Amino acid sequence: MATMNDVAKLAGVSVSTVSYALTGVRPVGEKTRARIQAAMDQLGYQPNAIARSLASRRTRIIALLFPAIERGLSGTALEFVTSAAEAARERGYHLVLWPIGNDEVAETRDLLQQRLADGVLVMEVRLDDPRVTLLQQSSTPFTLIGRTAEPAGLDHADIDFDATVREAIDHLVELGHRSIAFLSHSAASQTAGYGPTIRAGESFEKHMADRNLPVVIRHCDDSADAGRATVRELAASQPDLTALVTMNDAATFGAMAELMAHGQRIPEDFSVLSIVSSPKVGAMSHPRLTTMSAPGTELGRLGVASLIERIEGNQTEPLHELIPCRLDAQATTGPGPLADGKLPPREGT
Amino acid sequence: MATMNDVAKLAGVSVSTVSYALTGVRPVGEKTRARIQAAMDQLGYQPNAIARSLASRRTRIIALLFPAIERGLSGTALEFVTSAAEAARERGYHLVLWPIGNDEVAETRDLLQQRLADGVLVMEVRLDDPRVTLLQQSSTPFTLIGRTAEPAGLDHADIDFDATVREAIDHLVELGHRSIAFLSHSAASQTAGYGPTIRAGESFEKHMADRNLPVVIRHCDDSADAGRATVRELAASQPDLTALVTMNDAATFGAMAELMAHGQRIPEDFSVLSIVSSPKVGAMSHPRLTTMSAPGTELGRLGVASLIERIEGNQTEPLHELIPCRLDAQATTGPGPLADGKLPPREGT
Repeated sequence: MATMNDVAKLAGVSVSTVSYALTGVRPVGEKTRARIQAAMDQLGYQPNAIARSLASRRTRIIALLFPAIERGLSGTALEFVTSAAEAARERGYHLVLWPIGNDEVAETRDLLQQRLADGVLVMEVRLDDPRVTLLQQSSTPFTLIGRTAEPAGLDHADIDFDATVREAIDHLVELGHRSIAFLSHSAASQTAGYGPTIRAGESFEKHMADRNLPVVIRHCDDSADAGRATVRELAASQPDLTALVTMNDAATFGAMAELMAHGQRIPEDFSVLSIVSSPKVGAMSHPRLTTMSAPGTELGRLGVASLIERIEGNQTEPLHELIPCRLDAQATTGPGPLADGKLPPREGT
Repeated sequence: MATMNDVAKLAGVSVSTVSYALTGVRPVGEKTRARIQAAMDQLGYQPNAIARSLASRRTRIIALLFPAIERGLSGTALEFVTSAAEAARERGYHLVLWPIGNDEVAETRDLLQQRLADGVLVMEVRLDDPRVTLLQQSSTPFTLIGRTAEPAGLDHADIDFDATVREAIDHLVELGHRSIAFLSHSAASQTAGYGPTIRAGESFEKHMADRNLPVVIRHCDDSADAGRATVRELAASQPDLTALVTMNDAATFGAMAELMAHGQRIPEDFSVLSIVSSPKVGAMSHPRLTTMSAPGTELGRLGVASLIERIEGNQTEPLHELIPCRLDAQATTGPGPLADGKLPPREGT
């Protein structure tokens, strides 16, 4: 087996220089480093584990930038993380989560510079995201779960918000609803340019306007109490409302609790459809909630698979994948004011 | 400023040896290493970041062993993670999450051996936990959030399940309930020796028996559908039941949905009190749920503070902290069959 002496001799440098090149203890010029690398490759030299991971910059760790923790973790995000962790494990990688906020760029840079991760998955992407800028400047491969305003050049997998919102509206309009509000994430998320808030909001506006229906959108913190407060406000300002599309699990439960507290029967008086949710969450309510479930599992698998191909330097297609949520029509959506009297209370799923 | 040459001269070794000692590229004897360390200390020598972290084995990273992801993340766990991440950041450390199951010892060992973390927080502790055994064999400082069967020699902070369950029973008994069931985590968690399941179950048994009341305990997967199924079974097997203590948020919502589906009014016919939960979760239900909230934030701060003292080698008291959950009496607990007719529907908080 080749030794470090062999590498040094072939590269025409001292053993110390090889050591420095491997470890960064002292600076080594780029040309010298390349010569050492070529010698190592030619000899099949295997330095020990620490030196190897420094040399190859490989740790077999995938870091997930995970600001989700800041505002609670939806069932969707959990499914995504679980699926990503499994997909990584199957390929011999470890997924670790970095619970760092979107704006904590210094902390993100610090962890990146330690070269602890071979690649990075980015969650909770904003249209203009400082973390993406940082990653573009680094040499670390990355994949977005979500997308920026201009994602064409970036590997990304995301929910197809436009198709999802359109189907949600169709479901309610076919049931005879016309006065439908959209309960979204917080105003802060809108201001920050959080992708799901912006894209779902724009789609709701577009598809309601296409049908000549009024556009009512409310931003709401991700808490049940915020959902309750929003319903109180809507009851006063939009008395004709008969249906709610929600994209905010905690607020959805608060909103339904408040509707019931106001004596509204669901779905007889009022319909609720929660998007970017799941049947598991839907089972928590009485009546059982109609949901459109987010493709968390698929996004986790796709993102990790694509990222590992990049890490390993394999030829691979760019990842540009949009997946709509899947409708699970349950008991919180029923006939609205314009429904045919004979319309059954539920559409088939 | 001292250079590596100065360190080498003072320690009486070559510069290469200093480099090897710093980086592990080649083995260096323990005595030589100690001499180099002493010279570095005396000279105040600062190697660059990578060498420094290798030399000191310090990465300023705290790893959270995080199997919680496997079965969903409660509000408590979220509060805990958020608080731990903040506490770490304030002290200049990064918290990272390792989403590894309790039994994936090989993967845990692998990450530990890479020496990526200066210290480890352990969540979801079992009475006999292979991860704890592994950590005891390693040189990495660790703190348990939870505790094993014999935690006396280990730093740990945990919920005081006994005090919590006793107060939950007291609350319901004072309201006039006598036939009370406990809805716990899954049978699998009981078999695996998951601390909260075992300890809360034992306490429920003890405190009900102390009051000469029947002991009814049901294990239930952490899902709304499992909660619904358990209530269907209880309705058949325990028709006299008037109250439920739950420790399983997802199942609690399913249980309440099923009670309502059976025409039971909450709290007029049936009371529900959820422990190891939070008022935020309580706000998701109608009527608003009576909870005992878990001290997630306190546990996060205590665990991180203690761990950092250990990492930095400071003299510190052992961490042996048990904190009870805090009662927030809301609208799902009301007078039971033995209540004085004039008893108000709620106790003050």
